[in-house]
Amino acid sequence: MYENCSIEEAFELISRGTSEVIGADEIKEKLKKGKILTIKAGFDPTAPDIHIGHTVLLRKMKHFQDLGHKVVFLIGDFTGRIGDPSGKSKTRPQLTEEEVMKNAQTYKEQVFKVLDPEKTIIDFNSRWSTSLSFAEVLGLTSHYTVAQMLERDDFSKRYKGGQPIAIMELMYPLVQAYDSVALECDIELGGTDQTFNLLVGRSIMKEYGLSPQAVITVPLLEGTDGVDKMSKSLGNYIGINESAKDIYGKTMSIPDNLILKYMELTTDISSSDIKKYEKAIKDGDNPKTYKSILACELVRLYHGEDEVIKVEEEFARIFSSHGVPDDIETILIDAGDSIANIISTCMPSESKSQIKRLIQQGSVTLENEKITDINMPINSFGILKVGKRNFFRLGNKNL
Amino acid sequence: MYENCSIEEAFELISRGTSEVIGADEIKEKLKKGKILTIKAGFDPTAPDIHIGHTVLLRKMKHFQDLGHKVVFLIGDFTGRIGDPSGKSKTRPQLTEEEVMKNAQTYKEQVFKVLDPEKTIIDFNSRWSTSLSFAEVLGLTSHYTVAQMLERDDFSKRYKGGQPIAIMELMYPLVQAYDSVALECDIELGGTDQTFNLLVGRSIMKEYGLSPQAVITVPLLEGTDGVDKMSKSLGNYIGINESAKDIYGKTMSIPDNLILKYMELTTDISSSDIKKYEKAIKDGDNPKTYKSILACELVRLYHGEDEVIKVEEEFARIFSSHGVPDDIETILIDAGDSIANIISTCMPSESKSQIKRLIQQGSVTLENEKITDINMPINSFGILKVGKRNFFRLGNKNL
Repeated sequence: MYENCSIEEAFELISRGTSEVIGADEIKEKLKKGKILTIKAGFDPTAPDIHIGHTVLLRKMKHFQDLGHKVVFLIGDFTGRIGDPSGKSKTRPQLTEEEVMKNAQTYKEQVFKVLDPEKTIIDFNSRWSTSLSFAEVLGLTSHYTVAQMLERDDFSKRYKGGQPIAIMELMYPLVQAYDSVALECDIELGGTDQTFNLLVGRSIMKEYGLSPQAVITVPLLEGTDGVDKMSKSLGNYIGINESAKDIYGKTMSIPDNLILKYMELTTDISSSDIKKYEKAIKDGDNPKTYKSILACELVRLYHGEDEVIKVEEEFARIFSSHGVPDDIETILIDAGDSIANIISTCMPSESKSQIKRLIQQGSVTLENEKITDINMPINSFGILKVGKRNFFRLGNKNL
Repeated sequence: MYENCSIEEAFELISRGTSEVIGADEIKEKLKKGKILTIKAGFDPTAPDIHIGHTVLLRKMKHFQDLGHKVVFLIGDFTGRIGDPSGKSKTRPQLTEEEVMKNAQTYKEQVFKVLDPEKTIIDFNSRWSTSLSFAEVLGLTSHYTVAQMLERDDFSKRYKGGQPIAIMELMYPLVQAYDSVALECDIELGGTDQTFNLLVGRSIMKEYGLSPQAVITVPLLEGTDGVDKMSKSLGNYIGINESAKDIYGKTMSIPDNLILKYMELTTDISSSDIKKYEKAIKDGDNPKTYKSILACELVRLYHGEDEVIKVEEEFARIFSSHGVPDDIETILIDAGDSIANIISTCMPSESKSQIKRLIQQGSVTLENEKITDINMPINSFGILKVGKRNFFRLGNKNL
C-alpha cells in the first residue's frame, strides 16, 4: 500500500515509534536511488513464544515489507547449535538441528500473523557461519578491539565487577556482525538493548569493503505490570497466540500510562487518532474507554472482527455487573481438600507459590466470599474466582 | 647417552639452566611410568637466523632427545600465513606457503647443528589449525576469560595505557595452546617471555580432558653487549653460522660477568667445571682465560676441533702482540678518497652512521695511527684497523 509513496512519507513510516535511527542520511540516499533495501532482524533459535512485545519489532519489519523492501527474518541457529561448550551459560543451551527446525516452524506459525509470508525470507546464520575457516574467523577478530567490546554495558559492568567474561562471549557480537556482512544488509533492526551489537555490524561491514548498514532500534515494551520489560518468564506478557478473551482481559489490566504507547507500538491505530485520544484523556475522559479501544484492536489483529464483538460483550457483563462469564468450566473436587490444592487442580500451569500469593493477597473468592487461608478445607461448592478473570464451577467428585 | 640414567639424573639434566619448571611432579610421575614424553617448542615462521641465544632453548630440546623423548620442533606457520588482516601489525607479515617452506629449510640447516636430525619431528601448526571449524574455534574461546588474558604483561600495559588490542591478539595464545592439545604435549619449552602463553596451553589442555602439559622456561640470553637480549636486529648476537673467527672474536668481547652464564646455557661444559672456574675467578684469576675457554668451546661446537686450534693461534697473535692476522684481505682504493668511503668499501655491510661513529670514537687506525676525521683523505697505504678485529691491507687502485 506504500509502494508508491514519496521518500519523505516512506521515511516517516520507517521512523514511526523507533528509539533511534543511525545512518538516516544513508537510508534516504539509497531510497532516492530506488534501491530495494535488505533489512535484517535477528531472532533467538530457542523457545519462540511470540508476545506483543516482540511485535514492536515485527511490525517495524512489516513497514519495510509494505514499502517493498526485502526483509530477512534471521534465526541465529549457529550459536544455538554450539551452545556454551564450557557449560557455564544456561542461556546458551545446545540445540539439535531438529530442535532448531521445529522452533523455526513455531516461529513461522506465529510471526506470519504480523509479517507477509510472501515477502519474508526466513534464513539461518549457520548457512554461512558453519563454513567459516579459522583464518576467516581470525580475520573477523582483527577488526575489533578488546576495549571497544568492553564498552558494551553488560561487559563493562562484569569486567569492572571482577566477574568472568569468556573470550567466546566477545565472539558473539562478531558472529552477528558477520551475518550483516554475509547478507550485505542495508539496515538492521533490533530492540534498544541490541544497539551495541547492531553497531558492531555497522562497523565491521566497512572493514569488508561494504556500505555500512544503518541501525534502527525500537523501544522495549513494558509488560502488563507496567514495570518490567514484557517477557514470558516474568508472566507479564500478552501472547499473540492467546485466546481473544485473554488478550482482551490482559490488555484491560495494563496501567493507564501505557495505553498510548501500546497503541503506537503494537497496533495500526493512526498517529492522528492516538493524538486525539491523548488529548481526550488529558481533558478528563475515562482512560478505560481508550484501553478498551486498544484491547479491541489487539483482538482484531490476532483473532478478527467477529471475536472482537463476542469478547466485548462478555467482558461488559463481567466487569460491569460483577457477573460471571457464560462458559465456565466445571471442576470436580474432593470435599475437604485445601483451597490451595483445589486451585492447583483448576489451574495446573500456575506455580504453588503464585497460588499461595493469590490466596494471601485476597484475590480468591468462593461464592463471593474471600478465602485467605491457604490450608482452608473446602466443603461447599459453587463459583470459584481466582484473580480478576478466572472462573471455575466447583462440583463434588464423590457425588 | 642418558637413556639408561635414573629418574633423578634425568630430572637434573632437564632442570639444568632452566628458569622455571611448572609441573615437576607430573614430569617425574610420567618418567617413573617409563612414558616417552612429547616435548614441544614453537618457532616463528619468519626469518630464521639462529644465534647462540636461540641455542639455549635448542640445547634444552637436545637434552630431552638425549633422554630418549620425542621432540617436536613446531613452526607456527598458521598465523604466519594469515598475517594481520587489519594490516596494523608489522610483526605479522603474511607469508606464502613457499616462503614458509623455505624458512623451514633454513631452520633445518641451522638447528641440526644442535638437535639430532634423526630424533627431531619438524611439524607445522597449520596441519590442524587450518581445518578447525568456527564452532571448534568458539569452543576454544569458551575456556579462557578476557580478564585472564589481560593479565599478560604486555596486554595489561597496553590495555591500561589505552592502546588498542585487537580481539585477534587474544586469539593467538589460544592458537598456540591448541597446538599442545593437538600434539597431546607432555611438556612445552620456551623462553621466560613465553611463560604466559605456555600456561594457557597447560590450562586449555585440561578443558579438553587431557593431562596438562608441564611448562619449562629457559632464561633469555643477554647479547655480547651484556645489556639487551641477544637479537639480530640489535647487532649483539653470535650467529651459529658465523665463521670460527667471528664466533671466537665476538665471544671474547662479552662482559666478564656473562662468562659463566654463557657456559651454562650455551655449552656442554660440565657443572662441576663451571663451579671450578667460578671459584678461580673469585680467587683472582684473569677472567680472560675462562672467556677463551668459552670461546673455544663455542667454536668447537659449530666448527670442530681443528678450527679451535687455528683460531686460537691467530687470536693469540692479534691480542697478545698487537700484531695483525695472517690472512688479511687487500683492498684497492683510489688515492685521496675519504677514510669514511674507504671503510665503506672494506666493510660494505656496515652502515654509514656506524662507520662515522667508529672513526669519531678513535677505533680506526692506519699503520697504527689514529684517524678521527671522517673526511680525512687517504694517500698513504698499509694496514687499516677498524674496531678490535677488522684488518685490511690498503693498496693503490691506480698503480
